[in-house]
Amino acid sequence: MLAEIITIGDEILIGQIVDTNSAWMAEQLNLIGIKVKQVSSVSDDADHIIEALQLAEKRADIILITGGLGPTKDDITKITMARYFNMGFRRDQETLGHVTDIFVRYNKPMIESNRKQADVPDGCTVIKNKNGTAPCMWFEERGKIFVSMPGVPFEMKYLMEEEILPRLKKAFKLPAIIHKTILTANIGESFLAVELEEIEDSLPAHIKLAYLPKLGQIRLRLSGSGDDENLLKAEVEAYAQQIINKVKKYVVIDQDIALEKAILNIMQAHKLTLSTAESCTGGYIAHLITQHPGSSAVYAGGAVTYSNALKTSVLGVHAETLGTYGAVSEETVKEMAYGARINFKTDYAVAVSGVAGPDGGTEDKPVGTVWVAVANSHHVIARKFNFSNRRAQNIERSAIAALSMVLNEIKQDVG
Amino acid sequence: MLAEIITIGDEILIGQIVDTNSAWMAEQLNLIGIKVKQVSSVSDDADHIIEALQLAEKRADIILITGGLGPTKDDITKITMARYFNMGFRRDQETLGHVTDIFVRYNKPMIESNRKQADVPDGCTVIKNKNGTAPCMWFEERGKIFVSMPGVPFEMKYLMEEEILPRLKKAFKLPAIIHKTILTANIGESFLAVELEEIEDSLPAHIKLAYLPKLGQIRLRLSGSGDDENLLKAEVEAYAQQIINKVKKYVVIDQDIALEKAILNIMQAHKLTLSTAESCTGGYIAHLITQHPGSSAVYAGGAVTYSNALKTSVLGVHAETLGTYGAVSEETVKEMAYGARINFKTDYAVAVSGVAGPDGGTEDKPVGTVWVAVANSHHVIARKFNFSNRRAQNIERSAIAALSMVLNEIKQDVG
Repeated sequence: MLAEIITIGDEILIGQIVDTNSAWMAEQLNLIGIKVKQVSSVSDDADHIIEALQLAEKRADIILITGGLGPTKDDITKITMARYFNMGFRRDQETLGHVTDIFVRYNKPMIESNRKQADVPDGCTVIKNKNGTAPCMWFEERGKIFVSMPGVPFEMKYLMEEEILPRLKKAFKLPAIIHKTILTANIGESFLAVELEEIEDSLPAHIKLAYLPKLGQIRLRLSGSGDDENLLKAEVEAYAQQIINKVKKYVVIDQDIALEKAILNIMQAHKLTLSTAESCTGGYIAHLITQHPGSSAVYAGGAVTYSNALKTSVLGVHAETLGTYGAVSEETVKEMAYGARINFKTDYAVAVSGVAGPDGGTEDKPVGTVWVAVANSHHVIARKFNFSNRRAQNIERSAIAALSMVLNEIKQDVG
Repeated sequence: MLAEIITIGDEILIGQIVDTNSAWMAEQLNLIGIKVKQVSSVSDDADHIIEALQLAEKRADIILITGGLGPTKDDITKITMARYFNMGFRRDQETLGHVTDIFVRYNKPMIESNRKQADVPDGCTVIKNKNGTAPCMWFEERGKIFVSMPGVPFEMKYLMEEEILPRLKKAFKLPAIIHKTILTANIGESFLAVELEEIEDSLPAHIKLAYLPKLGQIRLRLSGSGDDENLLKAEVEAYAQQIINKVKKYVVIDQDIALEKAILNIMQAHKLTLSTAESCTGGYIAHLITQHPGSSAVYAGGAVTYSNALKTSVLGVHAETLGTYGAVSEETVKEMAYGARINFKTDYAVAVSGVAGPDGGTEDKPVGTVWVAVANSHHVIARKFNFSNRRAQNIERSAIAALSMVLNEIKQDVG
């Protein structure tokens, strides 16, 4: 089963926005067993859109289209879809009611261009867009499915999750697909591949193992497809267990969630609290944690101690330690973690100090040198890392390394 | 002058990575007067790549290709380009030397697949890739230019900036293009458009004004094209001045830099220091600031006071204030800013406290209610914002609002 994604609108083509929709849609489609053949971003130009539709229709069974559904003249997706399928227009009363409700709720005057949002090609099925005024349109023509969705990410995502993906599963009687994700850290892809070679070779044809690397972390994803969902689930689970046993010490968690979310879940279950003391990561770890709803149940807060003065006044790092060993040292980072845990009154604290770059490196401590420490009630451990010479990467990799160390400590403590 | 971008590789099509390259490339091309007609992401499949090349060649003058240049079997861009142009292969000695140097430097054994990275289609010009082993290849065929680059972002960006963009400018004798960007905040696009209608109508045909909105900020970009660069520069600058005078109170800075970078520049020039006290933004403001190299000259650090206990112990917010007015209040946020400025010994401090959501809202203080305060040596000001019901957006918009307030205060103080 093949799909294509077409994004319509000039924003991507002038570089104003990064197309995050397509990657998300592609991942969701792959998860239910639909492969994406091509992603095309085209301009708000009818002939160009028609050409893209024709080519996609030749190659794929499902064509998902985002964007170009606003009320302004630039937005021509709807009229172009009608032209492509040689359809007329009808005003969809349910959509009109929904759009009217939204304008009434926000107490805004409604003009004809807003009403026109309810006009749709007369051969399509309208799918209600709860989060916006542009309706989603589903076309079944010549044995293929075309879906036109708004390009606003949260509108598109809601529609995909609640409407499009379930309908596609039904329309194509897709086989059961079972995924199991294992998050690993602190091991490179090629080394992991060597460790897992035997297990990988023993996998039956209907179960595949994918390596999904991202800055110091690798997600291992087992994907099985078959007719009997329960049988498949047990089978995938058994292979997952083999993998976990084989590379146990690199396994962060056997779920498809972010590292910091895994920490929050475990800590919340055990009523544990966490604080942070960041130098080179500059608040990035705190940001990763606090982007998750409900993080306040675990995370008390932390300090971004960019200056040495703050390391001393806020975290209690001794001036002599900084003087003797420097800010980027085992001694300093341990005092940072210890101080955060005591001053912020939490069960655990994590501290990071390093040279993010591009400047500030020395022969002893080149750019990319990063110390991480984790403090709990019985000890403070520290580890040194050597990352790259690129600032953004160093910040991200330091955060991942720090969170991995936190998780390891907690898992040891809670068993 | 039209260009197309083709990205090759399965990573984008399975949703493993978001294609940030294309937006960046499109922006750079637009800045030198080259429009992007289409962006296509295709799989590692020779026939599919050939089809994409044929279609792009029909529509555009310049075809930029990224990805598929690694040493493994999956990477077939090079062999497919040779097939497309009916070329043989030659081993490029300079590339071989460069690849060998890299392996020697990292003390790694070199195998035949690594040596093959130096094999290139015999009709292309090789452009050295300083940051990696895959060479960049430049083809001029049938009056069009094709460039194949690695997909690794920092390798691609370096090649584009140092090699490809200058060569394209030369190859096509592009007109002089002058851009002037004005960053605005705290005003919506439609209101800004009304304010600037008269100026926009008076622009000559060779100067265009673009509105580039992003979460509470709008970049206004004047782009002029012409033959006489100096004349054009003066002309664009004069219109920019008109715009700045007209919407002065919304103008953040008249440069194309991030808001926090503008703050860092001004503060560094005036030897001023800054600290942060974040609740609902959870370290995101600190992260925005510290992603910039050299931020330590201005930024001392800050606190992420997620819990009320830390608001009191680290920032000195009175327990009675929290008890009487709550954490999300004018009184609390002012004490947070004041406390940060005093405790962290900086010239300015900014504090944020709000309900990021999705939970925690009340009738009085629904999700999206955010208070921001800025403290300097003579006063503490505060302002309330009402954002959306989406957590990630609330965090981002709060950060932008807070940084805008900081910049306004500083500009008032330094004149």
